Amino acid sequence: MLNHTVKIGILGAGTVGSGVIRLLRDQADLLMQRSALSYQLKSVVDVNWSKAQGIDFEGITTGSDPALILDDPEIDIVVETIGGLEPAATFVLAALSRRKHVVTANKALVAIRGRELFRQAQSNGVDLMFEASVGGGIPIIKGLREGLVANRIASIFGILNGTTNYILTRMSLDGMDFDGALSQAQRLGFAEKDPTLDIGGGDASHKLAILASIASSATVDLSRIHVEGIMGVAKLDVDFARSLGYVIKLLAICRQVEGKYDLRVHPTLIPQQHLLAAVNDEQNAIFVRGDFVGDMMFYGPGAGERPTASAIVSDIVDLSRDLLLNEGERFCRRTIDPEAEVSLLPLSEVVNRYYLRFYTLDAPGILAKIAGTLADNSISISSVVQLEKHERDNYVPLVILTHQALEKSMENALKTIRAYDFIREDMLRLRLF
Amino acid sequence: MLNHTVKIGILGAGTVGSGVIRLLRDQADLLMQRSALSYQLKSVVDVNWSKAQGIDFEGITTGSDPALILDDPEIDIVVETIGGLEPAATFVLAALSRRKHVVTANKALVAIRGRELFRQAQSNGVDLMFEASVGGGIPIIKGLREGLVANRIASIFGILNGTTNYILTRMSLDGMDFDGALSQAQRLGFAEKDPTLDIGGGDASHKLAILASIASSATVDLSRIHVEGIMGVAKLDVDFARSLGYVIKLLAICRQVEGKYDLRVHPTLIPQQHLLAAVNDEQNAIFVRGDFVGDMMFYGPGAGERPTASAIVSDIVDLSRDLLLNEGERFCRRTIDPEAEVSLLPLSEVVNRYYLRFYTLDAPGILAKIAGTLADNSISISSVVQLEKHERDNYVPLVILTHQALEKSMENALKTIRAYDFIREDMLRLRLF
Repeated sequence: MLNHTVKIGILGAGTVGSGVIRLLRDQADLLMQRSALSYQLKSVVDVNWSKAQGIDFEGITTGSDPALILDDPEIDIVVETIGGLEPAATFVLAALSRRKHVVTANKALVAIRGRELFRQAQSNGVDLMFEASVGGGIPIIKGLREGLVANRIASIFGILNGTTNYILTRMSLDGMDFDGALSQAQRLGFAEKDPTLDIGGGDASHKLAILASIASSATVDLSRIHVEGIMGVAKLDVDFARSLGYVIKLLAICRQVEGKYDLRVHPTLIPQQHLLAAVNDEQNAIFVRGDFVGDMMFYGPGAGERPTASAIVSDIVDLSRDLLLNEGERFCRRTIDPEAEVSLLPLSEVVNRYYLRFYTLDAPGILAKIAGTLADNSISISSVVQLEKHERDNYVPLVILTHQALEKSMENALKTIRAYDFIREDMLRLRLF
Repeated sequence: MLNHTVKIGILGAGTVGSGVIRLLRDQADLLMQRSALSYQLKSVVDVNWSKAQGIDFEGITTGSDPALILDDPEIDIVVETIGGLEPAATFVLAALSRRKHVVTANKALVAIRGRELFRQAQSNGVDLMFEASVGGGIPIIKGLREGLVANRIASIFGILNGTTNYILTRMSLDGMDFDGALSQAQRLGFAEKDPTLDIGGGDASHKLAILASIASSATVDLSRIHVEGIMGVAKLDVDFARSLGYVIKLLAICRQVEGKYDLRVHPTLIPQQHLLAAVNDEQNAIFVRGDFVGDMMFYGPGAGERPTASAIVSDIVDLSRDLLLNEGERFCRRTIDPEAEVSLLPLSEVVNRYYLRFYTLDAPGILAKIAGTLADNSISISSVVQLEKHERDNYVPLVILTHQALEKSMENALKTIRAYDFIREDMLRLRLF
């Protein structure tokens, strides 16, 4: 087996792209020793080089025209680290059509344009790799599709968004309120200036769609995933949850139920003894149940320049090894069938336990009325906490944990309860793990 | 890319072998769908078939002569699930010499005879795979050598033995003593009748040697790993540790210190907030620090028929995919260089924090004397607990946590302290994470 040099082009020299450039330089000897291959970074293309300061580009062609990479027949692997949908999608499609393998860290791109990209990859007999798109440096894609290849994936429960996990951890451990924790996350760089995509659950839903695609070997219609963010979770809820033995985390859930997939992202009460409850700050974790392996968890950094570069380069090494074995011929993994689509279980048919938090007027008969409405919908209560201490507006918080109930029944019950004049508007319904 | 059938022979139809046979039958469609390959189990060889009851062997050749597999030129991959050193080693060497890839779950074999096996594999240009040898169903070998391929591994901290973790968990959570927890583990099948290899730390040291080989790409002299078992850990120590904010776990440790490797297995105090402290019962976990990825953890079942089968079949699929790409040509991964050996850091040069538990006579001046001896050896104390309540023999327990100190200094101090006539023999020295 002869040594072989793999030629790489990077589109995007932002934080992630710069991380890959640095890694390929710093670890060149290690990568050569471990894979018996050498990796030549031939070209880097971007229009903004502010994040690449301090990088020695000697021997690397740089420029602003993507044709430098896309039109170079020598380049085997294109790394897309531009982010966002366009122009990333156009460039990736072009690279695939020119029979270049592509590695991307772009979760929005894979989640939203996946079908089109996988189709393009397969019709050209090349591969699209995306380890860095979920769980940052955690080798979760590899773990699922190779490590657990012999398992039907019964369920995946993921803490996939570092920003929301940081905020919820600070609310829980430091007694901060939501706004304070968010500001702190922004100061420390764990949250964007506009945090909507993170705190609204959108980012986690992109990653969930990708994991569900791997588990099912099919594509997922992102718009049909039920997504709730953490904006409604108050410090009071975090405290109530703790007193009941739970920790609140934003969970991305993929469950296989009789051949259909239950996919959701929402804040979830997790028992304190569960390993997922111990995943704190900006860390990510993915808890997986396989039919042979049983329960497993992968934990690690969900973002950051260096972890993301670690994941991208593991994809590069995998592709390169395959190129070598295949004597330079292209090939394609076909893990996800772009013509198949996951069949989703409607949310209304999902069964959950619930955490309900109301503010009610402090008057007689109110608990009876709420409990009665739940009972009318076949929902039975497992515990109730009503505090004596008054809040603003003469309203007192009332927290109810229910036993298992159908979403549909809960929706009905809440419609009735919300209409009662003794209930304040800002009620919260969470689900239990 | 044409469909291809990979032919497999299994040596050993015990618990693990039977698990692999069942998995290959149960998941045939899934494996075909995911890898575009089919897997034909051609032959199974054993002399004892008691564990294989209920398996349908139609279409599979069975027998007691390993030549049925070793001499069959059609067989691409040999799965060794015999266990133990011999005859497993002889058969594996024979299979490799006939240019068959080998998959094994046998940690003792890989840890003790690894050098010879890897040499044989490489000189024949074939591969020896052993995902199931460490961490059962957890894809830790794949995670380290492929997922973290771009990282120098700074450290690995592993809970690698389910038996000892079960015993220590029951002592901690149920207040059982060591003997009671061991009996219960034996009743539930988490401990062997002769538990020496598990509770003495030997099993964990085999797995540590394998992980250290992957991290270093070199072989490890197993006999030079410092190993302490959990036999000396009393319920009292578990309780003291908890009151000081720690949980005791049997940890397998691999640390890179200035180019040398610090390899040890011993009971270790882990801070209660650390994720490893939440790994309970018979579960395994491996905490890894890579220079790019940062801190990661892999968690899951460390043993069992089905998880082990899951890991073995992932190796089979990897080898098969490579066979396909390589058009049937053999190849070899060369992850571990059999001619390189890890350079070990002597234990005497390791720095640790320590937990010391003495039983001392309840007389004046004793604490001063012990503290003085520690000070004479430049060891400073971080906390002391001495309980009033008397134990049998007029001895009272005294627990000391120290700051960082050299192993060599601690050995010196303990030599002096052990000689004091007010110290009972059964002292315990543990190390902190």
